[in-house]
Amino acid sequence: MSMARRLVSEGLGTAMLLAVVVGSGIMAERLADGNVAIALLANALATGAGLIALILMFGTISGAHFNPVVTLSEAFQRNMPGKEVLPYILVQVLGAFSGVAAAHGMFEHPLFFASEHVRNGMAQWWSEFVATFGLIAVIISCTRSRPAVTPFAVAAYITAAYWFTASTSFANPAVTLARAASNTFAGIRPIDAPGFIIAQILGATAATLVFCWLYPAKQKDTVSH
Amino acid sequence: MSMARRLVSEGLGTAMLLAVVVGSGIMAERLADGNVAIALLANALATGAGLIALILMFGTISGAHFNPVVTLSEAFQRNMPGKEVLPYILVQVLGAFSGVAAAHGMFEHPLFFASEHVRNGMAQWWSEFVATFGLIAVIISCTRSRPAVTPFAVAAYITAAYWFTASTSFANPAVTLARAASNTFAGIRPIDAPGFIIAQILGATAATLVFCWLYPAKQKDTVSH
Amino acid sequence: MSMARRLVSEGLGTAMLLAVVVGSGIMAERLADGNVAIALLANALATGAGLIALILMFGTISGAHFNPVVTLSEAFQRNMPGKEVLPYILVQVLGAFSGVAAAHGMFEHPLFFASEHVRNGMAQWWSEFVATFGLIAVIISCTRSRPAVTPFAVAAYITAAYWFTASTSFANPAVTLARAASNTFAGIRPIDAPGFIIAQILGATAATLVFCWLYPAKQKDTVSH
Amino acid sequence: MSMARRLVSEGLGTAMLLAVVVGSGIMAERLADGNVAIALLANALATGAGLIALILMFGTISGAHFNPVVTLSEAFQRNMPGKEVLPYILVQVLGAFSGVAAAHGMFEHPLFFASEHVRNGMAQWWSEFVATFGLIAVIISCTRSRPAVTPFAVAAYITAAYWFTASTSFANPAVTLARAASNTFAGIRPIDAPGFIIAQILGATAATLVFCWLYPAKQKDTVSH
Repeated sequence: MSMARRLVSEGLGTAMLLAVVVGSGIMAERLADGNVAIALLANALATGAGLIALILMFGTISGAHFNPVVTLSEAFQRNMPGKEVLPYILVQVLGAFSGVAAAHGMFEHPLFFASEHVRNGMAQWWSEFVATFGLIAVIISCTRSRPAVTPFAVAAYITAAYWFTASTSFANPAVTLARAASNTFAGIRPIDAPGFIIAQILGATAATLVFCWLYPAKQKDTVSH
Repeated sequence: MSMARRLVSEGLGTAMLLAVVVGSGIMAERLADGNVAIALLANALATGAGLIALILMFGTISGAHFNPVVTLSEAFQRNMPGKEVLPYILVQVLGAFSGVAAAHGMFEHPLFFASEHVRNGMAQWWSEFVATFGLIAVIISCTRSRPAVTPFAVAAYITAAYWFTASTSFANPAVTLARAASNTFAGIRPIDAPGFIIAQILGATAATLVFCWLYPAKQKDTVSH
Repeated sequence: MSMARRLVSEGLGTAMLLAVVVGSGIMAERLADGNVAIALLANALATGAGLIALILMFGTISGAHFNPVVTLSEAFQRNMPGKEVLPYILVQVLGAFSGVAAAHGMFEHPLFFASEHVRNGMAQWWSEFVATFGLIAVIISCTRSRPAVTPFAVAAYITAAYWFTASTSFANPAVTLARAASNTFAGIRPIDAPGFIIAQILGATAATLVFCWLYPAKQKDTVSH
Repeated sequence: MSMARRLVSEGLGTAMLLAVVVGSGIMAERLADGNVAIALLANALATGAGLIALILMFGTISGAHFNPVVTLSEAFQRNMPGKEVLPYILVQVLGAFSGVAAAHGMFEHPLFFASEHVRNGMAQWWSEFVATFGLIAVIISCTRSRPAVTPFAVAAYITAAYWFTASTSFANPAVTLARAASNTFAGIRPIDAPGFIIAQILGATAATLVFCWLYPAKQKDTVSH
């Protein structure tokens, strides 16, 4: 695939992911009559189902990372050239903000408005560490053992992670930045974003090291064998 | 497959789709005790699950379009002869109204009764543009890269789209017309149908152009390569 | 597979199906605090998920019919010898009652107690006709076009049918008889069972005729080609 | 795969399973506003989705048992060497407690605190017998007939079993022990754990005997042929 196609794929895919996450969050909160569990059920169901579609749509073009730490982990494993990392991350972030704006347009909000949703403290950061560790673990494991099921495994993981982590599992720096621009159900205060992103990078690093050891790649050197 | 079988497949499949969408909407509203989020959860779950079954049932016969803009997009891509477009659309519309009548019969409503559900304005039309863009995008992407998963990808996409668009994602002109004849949870005022259909056609056109470029077909000329 | 194994498979599978349907109905009603939509969501989710597991477990042994009208339709299509029909139906009915008793034991109910849940009238019978028509349609279509996905298609169909039919889709004479012995969420008055069963047989007959025409079998004569 | 990798896989996988089960239980109870059905819906959805991801992640390394009775049943069937049983069980139990601690950390609970959730009596034990019978039945059936779908079948089964058994289906001695150390939604009083574990062992034994007869292994003697 040409580089232009791959970057459009990452940008458009990340935009659609954010439209799903933020849009379904707004809809869920509007309809749920104050019951946050029902809202999160809808948000998790929509995000999981949306991810199945999006990863199947864009996976064969660009890998369907939609996530800077996934791109960094793939580059570390030499699954993509290092010089593509920066362009990938740029279009992911650009796409993420576009997706938030698209969702806000559908629900008659301003294109961007800073979130006031407080999300910080050790328990939240530990949640993001665990969430991102698991996400990278799923991706490496499935890619190396049975790649055809990866879209379903990732979507299932994120659906679960919305519920089993206290942070509802952002697990993605581009998503975190863009959700800081949405004062809705899915938002996060801009000031809280850096803590989330640091925890995500640490979780992704740990998972990459552990799972490259657990699943040694056939054709190249890996850390521990 | 003979033309007769293909038209019966499109008509019967669209009828069953509408029975699922309208029937589950009525049931959900009756049982949900005023909580619209719970009703939409049930409606989305039933529609997504129903789509998996229906696309698997009818896909190998007629392609399981159930949707005029899907048929138009397929014909534009030369995946079907142009002369079949009109018969396909006619049986889809006929099937859609039959399905609404079948659902109304199950729930003791008159066969048809005009909806009073207001759905208009820029945010709603933008929602339908986005919803249909995504639907056609999923179909082109999966059909060109891994056709066996298309039924699951389309069903997952629609489940998500019920939640992430403000219009609950009609994304289908035949469905829109038939739902105008149902004054129930899934209805739309007849006067609001044209706005939805125009937005759907625009979204489908945009997606067809973008995704034919993203996924160039092997055996024929496409727009940009 | 030996006949003994096949009959144990049909009996045990139908028992487990009823344990899932009736057990999850009791649990759902107990926990749902009077909101029937939430109860039916749980019941539909459990039944759909249970069916995936059960059809995958028993399909390669006995076909995983668990349903007299499925057995009759298969025999009509000459997919199984006619002399096995009666033993199949007998173990299905026996299994169905055993499964109800197993569920009642888990929830501290008497083994059997006649249901008082009224389910009759044209709208209910039309619902059962539609529900069973769709079930047999899914089975014939998928078996003849892509058998590996049949378990998922059937489970998805039933999940949807719990919601889009006014009767919550029994679609199975053995299930109908056994649910008459359970005065719980999933029950049906014994006096209402015959109406349901007649509608189911009519729906199954219609679907068998239509879908054997839509999907002509390769190796044998079918009705209309 | 080396023994070290397999033990890390079983330990880490069981830890993540418990983090999912206990974490989503806490989140669900916090958000559900007292409606236990909504909480259990979220808990079941998260557990089922998490299991899909975890079994796909770890299955090709260690078999993804995460459960002492699964390990015992596999060893009985000579699918793994008997000398590996004890190490497997040890890391499963160790992993289970680690996962509970990880979940408690995410939700600001003490690492461990004994549950006060009463779960005993014949109906509960019969529920655990049925739940574990079904789990082992799914695993043996799918492993012997179509192993690629096993992760989906197991996850679907457990999702259903949360609802159709009165005990919400622990079906796993390591999980039972670790959940005794969590006074949350998913907990069980330490004094009630032995009753559950005995019922689980009996259910697993029954299923192993029945399903090794139903699905005779090709290459080795089995009980009844």
